[in-house]
Amino acid sequence: WFSSLIASPPRLLVLGFAMIILLGAGLLMLPFSHTQDSAPRFIDALFTATSATCVTGLVVVDTGTYWTTAGQLIILTMIQVGGLGFMTMATLFAIILKRRISLKERLVLQESLNQTSIEGIIRLVRKVVVYALTIELVGAILFTARFLFDMPVGEAMYKGAFHAVSFFNNAGFDIMGDYRSLVDYVGDPLVNIVTMLLIILGGLGFVVLSDLVDFRNMKRKLSLHSKVVLSMSGILIVTGAALILIFEYTNGKTFAPLGFGEKLLAAFMQSVSPRTAGVNSVDIAGLRQATQFIIIILMFIGASPGSTGGGIKTTTFTALVGAVVAMVRGKEDVVLFKMRLAQERVYKALTVTLFAFGLVIVATMILSTTEDHQFLMILFEVTSAFGTVGLSMGLTGDLTVAGKIIIILMMFMGRLGPLTLTYALGRKQGRALYRHAEGKIIIG
Amino acid sequence: WFSSLIASPPRLLVLGFAMIILLGAGLLMLPFSHTQDSAPRFIDALFTATSATCVTGLVVVDTGTYWTTAGQLIILTMIQVGGLGFMTMATLFAIILKRRISLKERLVLQESLNQTSIEGIIRLVRKVVVYALTIELVGAILFTARFLFDMPVGEAMYKGAFHAVSFFNNAGFDIMGDYRSLVDYVGDPLVNIVTMLLIILGGLGFVVLSDLVDFRNMKRKLSLHSKVVLSMSGILIVTGAALILIFEYTNGKTFAPLGFGEKLLAAFMQSVSPRTAGVNSVDIAGLRQATQFIIIILMFIGASPGSTGGGIKTTTFTALVGAVVAMVRGKEDVVLFKMRLAQERVYKALTVTLFAFGLVIVATMILSTTEDHQFLMILFEVTSAFGTVGLSMGLTGDLTVAGKIIIILMMFMGRLGPLTLTYALGRKQGRALYRHAEGKIIIG
Ligand SMILES: [K+]
Ligand SMILES: [K+]
Repeated sequence: WFSSLIASPPRLLVLGFAMIILLGAGLLMLPFSHTQDSAPRFIDALFTATSATCVTGLVVVDTGTYWTTAGQLIILTMIQVGGLGFMTMATLFAIILKRRISLKERLVLQESLNQTSIEGIIRLVRKVVVYALTIELVGAILFTARFLFDMPVGEAMYKGAFHAVSFFNNAGFDIMGDYRSLVDYVGDPLVNIVTMLLIILGGLGFVVLSDLVDFRNMKRKLSLHSKVVLSMSGILIVTGAALILIFEYTNGKTFAPLGFGEKLLAAFMQSVSPRTAGVNSVDIAGLRQATQFIIIILMFIGASPGSTGGGIKTTTFTALVGAVVAMVRGKEDVVLFKMRLAQERVYKALTVTLFAFGLVIVATMILSTTEDHQFLMILFEVTSAFGTVGLSMGLTGDLTVAGKIIIILMMFMGRLGPLTLTYALGRKQGRALYRHAEGKIIIG
Repeated sequence: WFSSLIASPPRLLVLGFAMIILLGAGLLMLPFSHTQDSAPRFIDALFTATSATCVTGLVVVDTGTYWTTAGQLIILTMIQVGGLGFMTMATLFAIILKRRISLKERLVLQESLNQTSIEGIIRLVRKVVVYALTIELVGAILFTARFLFDMPVGEAMYKGAFHAVSFFNNAGFDIMGDYRSLVDYVGDPLVNIVTMLLIILGGLGFVVLSDLVDFRNMKRKLSLHSKVVLSMSGILIVTGAALILIFEYTNGKTFAPLGFGEKLLAAFMQSVSPRTAGVNSVDIAGLRQATQFIIIILMFIGASPGSTGGGIKTTTFTALVGAVVAMVRGKEDVVLFKMRLAQERVYKALTVTLFAFGLVIVATMILSTTEDHQFLMILFEVTSAFGTVGLSMGLTGDLTVAGKIIIILMMFMGRLGPLTLTYALGRKQGRALYRHAEGKIIIG
């Protein structure tokens, strides 16, 4: 059994994630982790550990006040490990220890980063770590500089570092206290822009980041993958911000009290964050229904492959849009930037999306029976968990135990992604020895 | 322009439907059609005509009291024409007039009935009409017999005939008055069973009906198409009824006051009706959220191809389920009843579904801004319009003019179906002369 496990990278990945979560939950149960007299319920510790490791950010207790600094650092470690991918970390240790990396280990790593070729994986890992730490460091310094105006040096440095790591890893955890997230900084340009840059850089995926650096250094042209990721990310951010600005402009609970510049900042923040950071600078429950629905759609689409974010991914969404456009125009091929996508890739995008839809629908239906809350609130929570986003209309704190278990499962499955899950579940299978005769049914 | 129109059956179909709707709306505006002193607003007449022609059943005024008998008969005619397909009717006239049917006319007809081969189309049309009228007649007689206990002979016959035609065509219109539908007959076995049989027979599609008759006469085995339609319809009805029974068992607003037999009857009725009849025997607004969500899913799936019903169709849904199962099991082929589905058909099912999802999502988002109602209510209404179902949580009567226009468009597009629409919109195109080079993006 153990050898068959090792032979299957996806299975190893699923198990590894599960182990880290259980370990983290155990640590959070210990007295030094929490500020209360009695230990948290195991389900709440498990929920927090899953949310941290899967970089989701949904919380059943307030991170800033319920956990001690030790507890918060345990959470931050899970975020960093979960965000960079624990297999990347494992390989990192291997490199540090100067061990030679075997082909098997490279394969495991490849699965974890969702890459298509083995070569250059090792180089990529080094880069991943260098980029990530560099970006996090710059973010931490900028945050600290800003927080110095509001708090003592030590606190400013701690909060600066915590939020830089949390936001770059698209984890959405905050220690502002009282579930406030960035609501106190809704109009602050520095905090908002640094936050958005951290989120976006974390969500592009390391392939694109590395591609961009090479591109800037004139080493080569952008790959099709990078072009698709960058343009679709841009389209989604701008469209989302425009719609949110229009819908919320006169909403007294959110945008109305703000100046125009602040409105613009808040619109972009609320458009960037659902994919899939989970930071909010206005009250999500106070948004109009149309805005909440847009956020649900953005959360479902999510970030880009091989990034710290979740969702069905920008590339999958692009393939879907391409398939529908091709159908409407009566064309056979999905064409992006004058390149054709292989039909089997479009097919893969369609099945992945359908699988994700299925998960969200089933979980929403179950929660509709276990939770006594409005449908939109439930759909929002489930999509947020699946997309590892962490935004909530306020359901998380009220969840029943059954509800918490479902959301934990959604966070876990959402982080690993439909492809890894199905590979992990699926029996190993070569090409079929025979195929059935073709039959016809009428579609549509 | 005219000749290019004739050359494109889908375009002709779209235009034909539009003409019938406008004609019907005009007739409903005339004084003899309505019981009020002033004429209905055009938008309301258009809404009613679209709802009738697209056999949807959403109504902005009560059919039983607002319209005169003449108005009701105009509506019933639109239902019959829309249900059997106006091209079927046109060809029927052609047969009656003993005109020879040209190849072009057969092609138009083929589009209308969504058939894959031309041969036997003419034979099929004759059968369609004979089956439909026979089934409607039997239904009318049974309804009349039951209604005789409650009302005078003339009224019983009229109501019997109206509801038999409306239900067989999955139109969902009722003339019980006060938007009551079948609520007064929730526990009546005869009315419920006849209604369900009419709905199911109308929703299987004529290919399956004809196949079944041949099968019963031992002429041949069931086709794969018929097997898929029959088994998926059965699965959906039984699963839906079971879930509805469980969720509503203790609901004071719906099932709780009923005896067990009545509960069972009501569960099956509410499971059969969303696909896509639109009849209800309990208050839809009073159902639990989980039940309302199940009904939304059933409405989206809808009936079977070439039937009087709408939705993405049972066969499309089966192909989707097959694709996900194949993905999870790591198999290459979608296999149903030991027959393989061509990948291009599965691909078609996926794009059709995605297109439908897109329509529902966009319409829901627009209505979220124009209507001041709960999200679930709006999603329910939009799905009901797209699936040409006609169930409502009560939004229809409150719709703004903008909302009515969106729902009219959804009913129209839902009835014609994504495939016909895209063919109608699409430029005629042969195989591309050249293909772009293949590019790669990372999916999922
Ligand atoms: K997150
Ligand atoms: K209907």
